[in-house]
Amino acid sequence: VPTTEAETEERITRADAAYHAALDVAPSVRAAWLDAVARSLEHHSPGLVALAARETSLGEDRLRGELRRTAFQLRLLGEEIEAGLNLQATIDHADPEWGMGPRPDIRRANVPLGVVGVFGASNFPFAFSVIGGDSASALAAGCAVVHKIHEGHPELGARVGEIVTSALEAAGAPAGIFSTITGQGAGGTLVDHPFVQAIGFTGSTRAGRMLFDRASRRPTPIPFYGELGSINPVFVAPSAWNSRRSPLIAGYVSSFTLGMGQFCTKPGVLIIPSGPVDDLREAIAEALGGRRWTPMLTPAIRRGYEENLSLVRGMAGVSVLIDGDGAESPSPTVLLASGAVVLDQPEILRTEMFGPATLVVQYEGPEQLLELASLFDGQLTATVHAEADDEVSELLRLIRERSGRLVWNGWPTGVSVTYAQQHGGPYPATTQPGSTSVGTAAIGRFMRPVAYESFPSSLLPPSIQDANPWGIVRRIDGGPLTIDDWKRDSR
Amino acid sequence: VPTTEAETEERITRADAAYHAALDVAPSVRAAWLDAVARSLEHHSPGLVALAARETSLGEDRLRGELRRTAFQLRLLGEEIEAGLNLQATIDHADPEWGMGPRPDIRRANVPLGVVGVFGASNFPFAFSVIGGDSASALAAGCAVVHKIHEGHPELGARVGEIVTSALEAAGAPAGIFSTITGQGAGGTLVDHPFVQAIGFTGSTRAGRMLFDRASRRPTPIPFYGELGSINPVFVAPSAWNSRRSPLIAGYVSSFTLGMGQFCTKPGVLIIPSGPVDDLREAIAEALGGRRWTPMLTPAIRRGYEENLSLVRGMAGVSVLIDGDGAESPSPTVLLASGAVVLDQPEILRTEMFGPATLVVQYEGPEQLLELASLFDGQLTATVHAEADDEVSELLRLIRERSGRLVWNGWPTGVSVTYAQQHGGPYPATTQPGSTSVGTAAIGRFMRPVAYESFPSSLLPPSIQDANPWGIVRRIDGGPLTIDDWKRDSR
Repeated sequence: VPTTEAETEERITRADAAYHAALDVAPSVRAAWLDAVARSLEHHSPGLVALAARETSLGEDRLRGELRRTAFQLRLLGEEIEAGLNLQATIDHADPEWGMGPRPDIRRANVPLGVVGVFGASNFPFAFSVIGGDSASALAAGCAVVHKIHEGHPELGARVGEIVTSALEAAGAPAGIFSTITGQGAGGTLVDHPFVQAIGFTGSTRAGRMLFDRASRRPTPIPFYGELGSINPVFVAPSAWNSRRSPLIAGYVSSFTLGMGQFCTKPGVLIIPSGPVDDLREAIAEALGGRRWTPMLTPAIRRGYEENLSLVRGMAGVSVLIDGDGAESPSPTVLLASGAVVLDQPEILRTEMFGPATLVVQYEGPEQLLELASLFDGQLTATVHAEADDEVSELLRLIRERSGRLVWNGWPTGVSVTYAQQHGGPYPATTQPGSTSVGTAAIGRFMRPVAYESFPSSLLPPSIQDANPWGIVRRIDGGPLTIDDWKRDSR
Repeated sequence: VPTTEAETEERITRADAAYHAALDVAPSVRAAWLDAVARSLEHHSPGLVALAARETSLGEDRLRGELRRTAFQLRLLGEEIEAGLNLQATIDHADPEWGMGPRPDIRRANVPLGVVGVFGASNFPFAFSVIGGDSASALAAGCAVVHKIHEGHPELGARVGEIVTSALEAAGAPAGIFSTITGQGAGGTLVDHPFVQAIGFTGSTRAGRMLFDRASRRPTPIPFYGELGSINPVFVAPSAWNSRRSPLIAGYVSSFTLGMGQFCTKPGVLIIPSGPVDDLREAIAEALGGRRWTPMLTPAIRRGYEENLSLVRGMAGVSVLIDGDGAESPSPTVLLASGAVVLDQPEILRTEMFGPATLVVQYEGPEQLLELASLFDGQLTATVHAEADDEVSELLRLIRERSGRLVWNGWPTGVSVTYAQQHGGPYPATTQPGSTSVGTAAIGRFMRPVAYESFPSSLLPPSIQDANPWGIVRRIDGGPLTIDDWKRDSR
């Protein structure tokens, strides 16, 4: 049942009130709220995993791992806000000798933006959905969240929403700090509402761009953190191809078929040295053997998959290496093209086949490899398989310019939640190339800096008071971002 | 003479080539380039100041100070990139025990965006113009800059452009890393060009929103860092008003008339306890006495000033406390309204009179003060004059929600360039509430993060190689952002 206009309005208004009520809460309390949510998810794991498996056709093992990841992420973000790096607290004491003239006492810290609207993804019903990375990092930042449930898993979305809401309430968070809505109309209201200060979105380029435009056209435009489409090319140097072809093909097949190819980091193009096609077909067919296929996430995704697969397949010079069966649980399709064909039609590299299909491109020599690399639009990831003493500096330069994450001798699927992780990239991979939606740095998206000039310590937020009551990491007078008694082991 | 389409295209293309040529340059080399520019500005100071004074009517003393600030800023940004905080270098070593499953080695560092287009402001012909904060922080980030010269100081713009270009070239920077263009058409080309990766803008809300919309509508949207309009309210508690009225009025008059009121941080509204109007008029008139007025920056600014002054002056219940003379060097105008009048017509608080005019609002009691505070749109600054033991927490909460910088018992004009400075704020103060255009944090606007997964150290950028060859601040395995042998005094 779609949320009505009036209900949506009410949830956003309550979220705004809850955000205000929670403004002065210490990071440790907020971290405890996130931990309470994690514990509740773990407690309800069996039922949630079964429900998710039924609605998404993703396997229970994978879903169990994804739920573990989701709980881990909540706790890691909690630890991060307790350390306080997200606040970027910076203190410049007054300095009469400052080079441009006397400097007053200036102190800056990040503050939460307010209500954040989050649009969940269908392909990670836990980790990128209701209480996935966007919601978790917005709550960690101190924002309130209104989440638009994805139509791909409506029952799971509602159930997780209830669990999160109850856990937060039981832990003492203000009512309304997290809520869910359903339906496209409600989603539109969320993007337009004056109380909403930022949007997190994971989904298709088409829907993402439409909502980005909507957010940018508002009387008061707001940041739109959209993670859209990505091809995630994999470049293989002759050295690697000659020395470890078989594990490369096995790894590639595992990576592009993971979750039926419905990963934003799925390797959509494998770029290898030219060579005999029959051997290649045989090796890929062998690697595909013995695997089981499942239905795709939603009818809409299936439709989009068929459309884009047909599009690429129909381009001049593109041939079929392995033909999928088009069943309800479709077996994968592998297309093939030469470097020359792709250079003639770069749009081949710009059409994401979201599902179990991929394209192999055979290149002729190192120059053509670089030419191909230069054709790509913005990407979440780009991967290189080579030896460390190969000449890859120009290739690395080209792909870095186009991607948020570079992988060496590995596979792009599997994005660990860490301090250094970067899950983002130039448009169309995302609408905000300076941000990440995975890892601790994701919190900063939902904060903004405020400077206090010449304030008495008692009127400052705790983050920048002299006594450092929260014991957080701070930057003092241009020094490093640290605290004197930082103890790595005590965390 | 407006730059032609072909010339603009050529400068952007050269900028892109220069950005690429400079990609691997060490921070110390880039800092030396910035220092060379600072030295050249200082060397040419007498001629530049004279030229600026002629074109802008701003006084030579003020312009000399502004040039000093501009040179200081270049060097401070150079020191910052040598320390490396802008790179946010983060290293997570591989960890088989990582809570969500084994973690590969992941390392992240910021990289420059590419070519940045900068639109300078008329009111700070040095510090916010050709080689002002936007250009300096973009160059510090490792970007190339194409600067659109403001029509308010065309000769100075061209001259500073030559000085910067020559200084960079003499210091060994690649040709084309900095260039200038003139004319609205060329400015439009800059916003649209596919090589341009971000825009920095300081100017009016109208022009800024138009260019923001243009940047957002591109096939590949780019970040638009626009600093637009701000009213910069000043709230005075009864305690302060009763105990130090005379210095308050003197400070207010100095602040709102500084540079003929043509400051983005000009206090446009003074909110004081109600009281006798005649005394107030007399005190302000006295504080205004003995000052000299100068022509405004440009005919367009003069026109806009007259229009908005008429608009506010014509609103019901707004009276004239001090009437300006409308001369070529116009004496200031001070308007007056009661809190009740403003509460009835909140648009009074949303019309920026960019020039030597300001509005005094007299409030009735603490509740009305809070009601007034809640009416403001996004601001660069908000100021409070009170005693530390006054009850101001709700007022501070309301203004923090609306501003990027809070000032206590001071004045908003005068924005020191420091580590903690925040010159930004919610829309319409800026188009990117998470960013600042003044201070060392401004550099981050023109960078984006890239993660490297499982790379051999030799193929990583120096910023995240094991040996830390640049000796920069880094975050290791979730610790603080520091280096082991950080020595504050050695910088």
